[in-house]
Order: sequence, then structure tokens, then C-alpha cells
Amino acid sequence: MRGLFITLEGGDGAGKSTQLAHLAQWLRSLGRDVVETREPGGTEVGEALRDIVLHHRGHIDPRAEALIYAADRAHHIATKVRPALERGAVVLQDRYLDSSVAYQGAGRVLDAGEIRSLSLWATGGLMPDLTVLLDIDPRAGRARLEGKRFDRLETEAIEFHQRVREAYLALAADEPTRFLVLSAADPIGTLADSIRARVETLL
Amino acid sequence: MRGLFITLEGGDGAGKSTQLAHLAQWLRSLGRDVVETREPGGTEVGEALRDIVLHHRGHIDPRAEALIYAADRAHHIATKVRPALERGAVVLQDRYLDSSVAYQGAGRVLDAGEIRSLSLWATGGLMPDLTVLLDIDPRAGRARLEGKRFDRLETEAIEFHQRVREAYLALAADEPTRFLVLSAADPIGTLADSIRARVETLL
Repeated sequence: MRGLFITLEGGDGAGKSTQLAHLAQWLRSLGRDVVETREPGGTEVGEALRDIVLHHRGHIDPRAEALIYAADRAHHIATKVRPALERGAVVLQDRYLDSSVAYQGAGRVLDAGEIRSLSLWATGGLMPDLTVLLDIDPRAGRARLEGKRFDRLETEAIEFHQRVREAYLALAADEPTRFLVLSAADPIGTLADSIRARVETLL
Repeated sequence: MRGLFITLEGGDGAGKSTQLAHLAQWLRSLGRDVVETREPGGTEVGEALRDIVLHHRGHIDPRAEALIYAADRAHHIATKVRPALERGAVVLQDRYLDSSVAYQGAGRVLDAGEIRSLSLWATGGLMPDLTVLLDIDPRAGRARLEGKRFDRLETEAIEFHQRVREAYLALAADEPTRFLVLSAADPIGTLADSIRARVETLL
């Protein structure tokens, strides 16, 4: 594949969408074909799948839930991300594999290694060329989000988010070449500069 | 678990639902708690999932489709089959794991071993105590179904069904203890007697 697949990871309030927008703007100014995406990826199938998880009244088996998210990912990667990469685009994605491992694996009832395997099977093993981890103290992230409505994950205890943060940092330590870890407490412009510098080496 | 999990497998027209009904009636006459089920298992989540696969206009990635079916299975097993087995019921299920492996693995684009692993992950490794394979020549099965409306699988070529049959027989050869292989061409009463005799040893 000729394109470049870059994912942004980090807790809520870390500034992923801000950095994704900056990076997209800069890449477009260089004349690159840029695709900004996230999961749920806005495919019709994906929306229908998430609708089941979000609006079902009553218990959904945790493995069923993980499989539904994996199906959403499989469809999104196969129909949107891979075609973009194949035509040479730079795909910037807000959350991917590492989110599933950090949130579901570290915080929920399922094993992190199994979640990773499931996700890799779903995507035919597609790994990002670069993953930017915006590391943030959960309390600081929550403070930034103040005033925003919290979703299900955001209302869980701060201890949960602390485990997510540790899981992210462990993933980054395991794959130092793929990850660029930055402190989300740094100024927006400083972060954007660091990300651009790293992406430049990949173009 | 105190119950008994029995699955019926075989090509379309093999007579699975007839034998399932006979077996259920006999078990109930012995005073056993019997649960007859199938996949899709009639759960609300399962119906919603299958609705996506059956009514989506356009391409669904094969892995996404396999994951959706696995999610349906995970939910069905966790919410319906396991609770029944835990209270000591005999669960009679029309199609399970082996159908997925034989149909999707042998006939489609995905690897049979991967489909099996996915399914086992989905169900927490639940294997049947007994699997009755009603082996049938695809042409004979099709003749029996004449007049019935064919679903998507049924309209595929006879060669496909021949590969499914071979896949079933290979699965049975791999696990001779779990499988009871019968010729679906035998009279209904003869088949029912053979199945009862085997189930009796498990009660």
C-alpha cells in the first residue's frame, strides 16, 4: 500500500481531534490526499451495529459487544481505510486498535491479548504506520471536558481512566517505533510541531 | 454444567428439524427439561444483527459478516443456552459451530480454522456433548426441498454444497467421539431410533 495510516490515541480530553485537524490542514497544504476518519466510521453498516449496542435495553454479553465493535472495525477498514491507503492517501484516524486494547482489555472483563487478536483478525492485520499517543492525567482530561456531556465511559470512575492511561503507556513501551508519545499538557502549537516533525520523516 | 448440549448438523433438506422434534418429544416423555433452539436464536440482539446482514443493500466485508454472526452466537449462547444448561436442561440446537466451519470456512473466502477459533472465542469454548450429522447427497437434499423457497445459500451451486458435505464429514472424522454420523437417506423412524440410543448413553 502506498498511503500512510496514522492513528491518534489518548484519554478523553487529550486533544486528539484538535491535533488531527491541525495535521490534516498541514498535509493538505502540502498537496496530500487526506482522509480524516474515526470509529464509528460513519458507514451505514457501522451505524446500524453501534445502534444495537447503544440502544439495546438490557444486558449484552461482553463478548457479543466486543464482536460487534470488531465487525464495525472490519467494515470500516475494508470499505473506507484500505481503499484510501491503496490510492495513496494519508488516513488520519481518531482511535483504533490501541483504544480497544486499552479500554476493553484493561478496563473491562475481557483479556487484552484476545481483544488485540480479534481486532487484528477483523482488519486483516492492518497496523498504523504511526500512532500518536497524547498522554494525559485523567483528572486533567476530565477538567478539560467540563461542561461537555459525558458518555458511558466518561462517567466511569477516575480509577478506570488511570488504568486506561497505564495500558496506553505499556502499549507504547512495547512498540516504541510505532508510537510517538507526547504530553497532552504541552501547548497545542508545540504538540502540532512535534507531530509534523515525525510525520515528515514518513512522507 | 449439569445439562446436555446436543447439536444437529447437515445440509439443507437433511431432516434436522424433524429429528430435533422427535428427540425433543421423547426427552419430554422422560420428564426432561428440553430447550429447542437454533441460530439465529431469536434474541432481540440476534435478530437486529441478522437484519443488518440480510437487509443491507451493498457489500459487507466478509470478516465483518463473520464477526456479526459470531456476535449473534455469543449473545445466544450466553443468554439462552448456558443458563438452560446450568439449570440442567437438555438443549437441542439446530446448527452450531460446525455449520459455520463447514459453510463459511469450506465454501467462502475465510479460513476454516480461523472461523472455528472465532466461534470458540465467542462462546467461551462451549462445545456440544453430542453432534448428530445427518449426511445427505446435496442433490437428494435439494430434491426434498423442492417447492420450498431457497435462501441465499440454497441457490448457490450444487458444487458448493458438495464441498460443505465433505467439510462436515472431515469434521466428524476429526472428532469421532462427539459426532454421530447417520445417512439422512434412512427412514425417519430408523434415524430417530439411532439418535435416541446414543442420547440414552449420555443421560
